[in-house]
Amino acid sequence: MPDAYLAAVGHTRFGKLGMSPTALTREAWAELTGSLEQVPVIEDLYVGSLGFGGVQLGNLASVVADACGISGVAASRIEDACASSGYALQHAVRAVRSGDIKVALVVGVEVMNTIPDPRRRFWLGVSGDMAWERMAGITFPGTYALMARRHFHEHGSTPEDLALIAQKNHRHGALNPKAHFQQELSDDKVASSPLIADPLRLIDCCPMSDGAAMALVCDEETARSLTDRPVQVLASAGASDRTPLQDRNLLSGLQATRKAASRAYQQAGVSPADIQLAEVHDCFTIAELMACEDLGFAGIGQGGEWIRSGASTLGGSLPINPSGGLKAKGHPLGATGISQVAEVFAQLRGECGDRQVANATLGLTHNVGGSGSTAIVHILRSA
Amino acid sequence: MPDAYLAAVGHTRFGKLGMSPTALTREAWAELTGSLEQVPVIEDLYVGSLGFGGVQLGNLASVVADACGISGVAASRIEDACASSGYALQHAVRAVRSGDIKVALVVGVEVMNTIPDPRRRFWLGVSGDMAWERMAGITFPGTYALMARRHFHEHGSTPEDLALIAQKNHRHGALNPKAHFQQELSDDKVASSPLIADPLRLIDCCPMSDGAAMALVCDEETARSLTDRPVQVLASAGASDRTPLQDRNLLSGLQATRKAASRAYQQAGVSPADIQLAEVHDCFTIAELMACEDLGFAGIGQGGEWIRSGASTLGGSLPINPSGGLKAKGHPLGATGISQVAEVFAQLRGECGDRQVANATLGLTHNVGGSGSTAIVHILRSA
Repeated sequence: MPDAYLAAVGHTRFGKLGMSPTALTREAWAELTGSLEQVPVIEDLYVGSLGFGGVQLGNLASVVADACGISGVAASRIEDACASSGYALQHAVRAVRSGDIKVALVVGVEVMNTIPDPRRRFWLGVSGDMAWERMAGITFPGTYALMARRHFHEHGSTPEDLALIAQKNHRHGALNPKAHFQQELSDDKVASSPLIADPLRLIDCCPMSDGAAMALVCDEETARSLTDRPVQVLASAGASDRTPLQDRNLLSGLQATRKAASRAYQQAGVSPADIQLAEVHDCFTIAELMACEDLGFAGIGQGGEWIRSGASTLGGSLPINPSGGLKAKGHPLGATGISQVAEVFAQLRGECGDRQVANATLGLTHNVGGSGSTAIVHILRSA
Repeated sequence: MPDAYLAAVGHTRFGKLGMSPTALTREAWAELTGSLEQVPVIEDLYVGSLGFGGVQLGNLASVVADACGISGVAASRIEDACASSGYALQHAVRAVRSGDIKVALVVGVEVMNTIPDPRRRFWLGVSGDMAWERMAGITFPGTYALMARRHFHEHGSTPEDLALIAQKNHRHGALNPKAHFQQELSDDKVASSPLIADPLRLIDCCPMSDGAAMALVCDEETARSLTDRPVQVLASAGASDRTPLQDRNLLSGLQATRKAASRAYQQAGVSPADIQLAEVHDCFTIAELMACEDLGFAGIGQGGEWIRSGASTLGGSLPINPSGGLKAKGHPLGATGISQVAEVFAQLRGECGDRQVANATLGLTHNVGGSGSTAIVHILRSA
């Protein structure tokens, strides 16, 4: 089968932007096309968005196609809660690998802030199980708080471990001019941060961001005609789990991540020890801690110790979330998966300035839907 | 590349059912699995649904996976308004053709009736352009009424042509035990039908239905191990158009359909004259009339004459919507694309009893998102 490559990416600032999904799409599109000498004919469009981009209730994909000036292409929206654009990338990769098309555009876009108040409530519970969890009143921070409690109980990790993750990601985000939060997080701010869902404090939670990101997925020949530094998609693997926490055997990690990671490492023929940097899904700090274990970077139950070792900070042995992650770069739900890919793409091309991971050639992205009911892992390599 | 085949389908009744998306999924799953001696290992799940199945706001795919007892698979939801499960099938076909997987399940599901009143308003405008069309107050029947007016103006077609389509589809639906409407439509009922959006009357509009449909997509070897009558997916081609009608050059047909059809015929190496039956997207009667022209079954502007010739009725030269179509079988938005595929699958296997098209070996499905901002065409062949 033909392999799939990334040839270019585009990325807006993340934050409270007051922009429509189409305006965000156009900004990312201008960056993507501006990085190319010529724009190839795009055959397919895959749009990842959870809440319809915040505006267009149905058929967002054709609206995004129009915003990019490519109306006419086959266009569809993929929704996997916060893993929407991670899955959108997989569908594009499969389309290229099928030989049916040569060039696809993958877009992630979400507007979370400038929508009417009644619809903002949507974000609170959208990703949990509606039949039981929401009926019981649990919020999204609440589900991750339950997982944090269980991780503390089983493995002795602490709120201080979580704060270290928040501070690391803020340090990284301060080096990213597109991040929602571009300032470090002081010990004082950690100490005074209000509880949201015990044991998670405000500093443990990612912000509600607006933003868009996109990537151009091509066959090898097209990719090499567009850039001399393409990035190969070595693996693309998804998995799912039962949605309500009460139906799961494991609360201190995500089975969907473990399955997706295992499939991805097998596809790529690499092991966790080969990965040089990773963007992981830290919607809450506990999520990064669990991800580092579930992806095999730290032993199960040893995530806290691993964080404390400094391995995951820029300059460490395996920098995690050099972009700032969801925690500091921001989390426009449907845009996050492709935003992660855009960061690893830029890192593998040595374009990340102050936050560059030295000599990186192999990176991983990890994107989670909801509280782990879906997950998807990509492994990318300089080509 | 490996070709993709359909090995089994499942389909609930369509109608006002008072069932949840998971209950609907289970009913279709029981039918699908009941048709097989053994159920193969399913690797991927693709769920087509516009309104979250009506219940689960995010991550519907993992909830559907759980309902089928296949939690753990890679699972995503595809949304293309009313073309959601048509596109879901394309993504599954591409996954099989990529060689990455051998077996995928494609599910379409929608609950339209048993949801709270405020959210039912959602259906009225969900598929139109939110920035302009909805702001101007136009409803979904309104957009198709504009297209009908334009078709009448350009081509001399009439409300009587549209009524013939409604009556034909009701005749077909009366032969389908799973149809929402299983009775014929008398001339008296046509004459007394209230105007909804001039010139469209109630009898020109499809109903709001609940339902689910699914199909098992496999590589050839797996398909032949499961059934001695697999159906090959000869072509799968999508296209898009600008969403607001005011941005289009053509109002008396759908450019997205014309592009998708042209790509599909080219992929399959067949022409419209080779097609022996088709399920087309008749959300309104005018939509079927335009589709028969856009798909090349009738000349442009000659759809009315073609309908009057009786060609498209059961027993005619090219039966259109033998299932009853959206008009009589019903239209649970996200379920429709796969429901069409399930009908053609059954027709090509000679399983349709009183509504069987004799000796059919080549069929087409045509699924439209919104008022034509997306469309997707599949061509299926007995294998």
